[in-house]
Amino acid sequence: MVILTLNCGSSSAKYQLYDWAAKEVLAVGAIERIGQKISTIEHKAKGETYESEVSSPSHKEAIEIIISTILDEKLGVISSVDEIKAVGHRVLHGGEKFKESVIVTDEVMEVFESLVHLGPLHMPANILGIKAAQQVIPEVPHCAVMDTAWHQTMPPEAYLYAVPYQWYTDHNVRRYGFHGTSYVYTAKRASVLLGKAPKDTNLVIAHIGNGASICAVKNGVCVDTSMGLTPLEGLIMGTRSGDLDPAILPYIMNATGKSATEIDTALNKESGILAISGLSSDRRDIRDAAANGDERSQLAIDMECYRLKKYIGGYMAAVGKIDALVFTAGVGEMAPHIRKGVLSGLEHLGIIFDPVKNEQATCRNTELEISTDDSPVKILIIPTDEELVMTEDTYALLQGTYDVHTKFTYSFQSADYENKARAAALKKDLEKRPYLKDLMA
Amino acid sequence: MVILTLNCGSSSAKYQLYDWAAKEVLAVGAIERIGQKISTIEHKAKGETYESEVSSPSHKEAIEIIISTILDEKLGVISSVDEIKAVGHRVLHGGEKFKESVIVTDEVMEVFESLVHLGPLHMPANILGIKAAQQVIPEVPHCAVMDTAWHQTMPPEAYLYAVPYQWYTDHNVRRYGFHGTSYVYTAKRASVLLGKAPKDTNLVIAHIGNGASICAVKNGVCVDTSMGLTPLEGLIMGTRSGDLDPAILPYIMNATGKSATEIDTALNKESGILAISGLSSDRRDIRDAAANGDERSQLAIDMECYRLKKYIGGYMAAVGKIDALVFTAGVGEMAPHIRKGVLSGLEHLGIIFDPVKNEQATCRNTELEISTDDSPVKILIIPTDEELVMTEDTYALLQGTYDVHTKFTYSFQSADYENKARAAALKKDLEKRPYLKDLMA
Repeated sequence: MVILTLNCGSSSAKYQLYDWAAKEVLAVGAIERIGQKISTIEHKAKGETYESEVSSPSHKEAIEIIISTILDEKLGVISSVDEIKAVGHRVLHGGEKFKESVIVTDEVMEVFESLVHLGPLHMPANILGIKAAQQVIPEVPHCAVMDTAWHQTMPPEAYLYAVPYQWYTDHNVRRYGFHGTSYVYTAKRASVLLGKAPKDTNLVIAHIGNGASICAVKNGVCVDTSMGLTPLEGLIMGTRSGDLDPAILPYIMNATGKSATEIDTALNKESGILAISGLSSDRRDIRDAAANGDERSQLAIDMECYRLKKYIGGYMAAVGKIDALVFTAGVGEMAPHIRKGVLSGLEHLGIIFDPVKNEQATCRNTELEISTDDSPVKILIIPTDEELVMTEDTYALLQGTYDVHTKFTYSFQSADYENKARAAALKKDLEKRPYLKDLMA
Repeated sequence: MVILTLNCGSSSAKYQLYDWAAKEVLAVGAIERIGQKISTIEHKAKGETYESEVSSPSHKEAIEIIISTILDEKLGVISSVDEIKAVGHRVLHGGEKFKESVIVTDEVMEVFESLVHLGPLHMPANILGIKAAQQVIPEVPHCAVMDTAWHQTMPPEAYLYAVPYQWYTDHNVRRYGFHGTSYVYTAKRASVLLGKAPKDTNLVIAHIGNGASICAVKNGVCVDTSMGLTPLEGLIMGTRSGDLDPAILPYIMNATGKSATEIDTALNKESGILAISGLSSDRRDIRDAAANGDERSQLAIDMECYRLKKYIGGYMAAVGKIDALVFTAGVGEMAPHIRKGVLSGLEHLGIIFDPVKNEQATCRNTELEISTDDSPVKILIIPTDEELVMTEDTYALLQGTYDVHTKFTYSFQSADYENKARAAALKKDLEKRPYLKDLMA
């Protein structure tokens, strides 16, 4: 049995094909620039990467191309579309309606349509993607896995804003949180690594990529997170400002004559690391520029780390004693200089990192531990795997065995769970960098 | 020698007259509803309170009334205006220009005029107040004591926002912080109570009144604070929202058709405790309503406490080990139920409060300690005294002995400093509530 997962953005469609019996990823890829004159596909399967230009005026063609590619005699990995038994779709927003993944029905689609205003950039593409996939593969269940679902356990004091109450009741203004699928994976994996049941596990998890958020986990469930009504709030990100005095918006509108939409765009697309450095949103560029003496790049690093540091302290106050601090996603997994800036000076809170281990910990194929042996709080780096959560939710929905994550056990919650592709890659890594063995969690 | 301090708001003028030699407050009062048909004065002196209607079409008349009142045969406390040797003015905003109090000159007034856009509600009144007082008492130095000055020691990673950089360079968008005069007093007093030099003192200070902010103090100076470009950011306040997803503003503007100014007003005047409870911005009303089972009032309490708790943790991460957590201002000094909500569950961070002491600690005439004997972090309640800071700054400016607070020693930094009025009132308090003695810091 094969499960297809799809993640449709406004101009992209990412996919993964997973062989359930073999517990193996068969193919992974993405079509980019959907709707433009020339689109592209990148397709990885059987140890090779295939790249090409394609014609994909809409998501429907994109999904047709994906299907024909995975069926292709040379590039393909399955011989009939009938092998695909279900499709899992990543959906940004489930509002307050969904606290778990669901099989897509007409009613579910109506809810998604009603939530477009909460995710105007992502929801239309998510909806288009589902509809297109339903047309192309109509015979199988389509499931929706929402970024907000994990966060629905937050208590009101964490999810409500102190704004006019009817903004909540009439306009759905509250904290939703995002990156939930990543937190499901990393939280459950952290419990495994700690040898604890999720219900006994307290964590702070920092998901730091181009977008970034942080999540407070108490007794295995989310109690707070930094992204809010939208993904703008919270940490300093590649191009997003994160937290600021809300009065800055009317102030700048007044000072510059810009519209609310222009300011919103500036805060989402022209802020964050890009704005502080004046150079780039890519943390590697910034690291290199700072190393070459660029002051504003150093400032961008300092600001990003400082914001993270405060959130970690804040969530430790919110959660109580934590078992581990977890880093995940591109920057969390691969940027020792960011982790160093965040972790320095947190010793008095029981977070003690090993500087050498931290520098060495740049490997996305295994889970690493960079705390000292006597650190009261463990510091873990857990490469996230959102596609696996989507795949397992979809499979379980298909089988009728699915339940909300607090009552459901994922395959990766087993102590001997292994991601085969990563294990193979790790083997090569260890040949080159045998010291990684000492860091493995 | 007598020093007059003035705090002019848009429709009010608060004043205090201080006898430097006797180290004693001679009179304190306020004119309210300036510019309306009927204004009022409240004047406290010689142990009595006088209230009356007056005519005060502008700040100039208000200050004339203040002068005639303090010279009045019956209500007055001095016999000639010549006894006033200097006037200290509270000014909201010093921008990046002033990191300390200054004698008002034409150049200083020009700077204040240039900063009106940063404090459109307060600065015009502050400027009017200075000009009016200069007219009425022209022969003496007028000094400006700014709410932002204390915070000018913040490092860039704390005061900059991750927004387009020209918003900072061209429009002065940065964190300024407010309540600085209160933090000067409480930080210095905390050092005294801890028996430490300010430069060796690390603190988190929560100034919680109708407006509320919190300040991180490292080595005796401010390194971060919750209010930002304006007093809107940070904690949940009486009618202000504090922190929220900035994307909420364009979202609500779009959803309701309201203007940026209307949203700004809603966030400043119709949010916070008032909005959550739907009842009142007064924490006493909310406490009583919650005790009577009103769920939204309980929610308002929970949200206010939770926000404070997160900031305390965040600032502990920012500062490193702290010596004390300090509560001040109306709510901080007089609301045990808020302090309890904030402090509960912070034991793992070394903050352990005594619940009985906390309940008993409702006395604004002395400094109290509500931590347990074995709490690594002391929890202090320090009644603030902004007027004394203003008076001492003004006196020192007059004498030519003034310097930035890191190089200057206030009278209240002496171990045997005593506020005479408070000491007298405390004596009466102790007769009624002898147990307060055990709480005194």
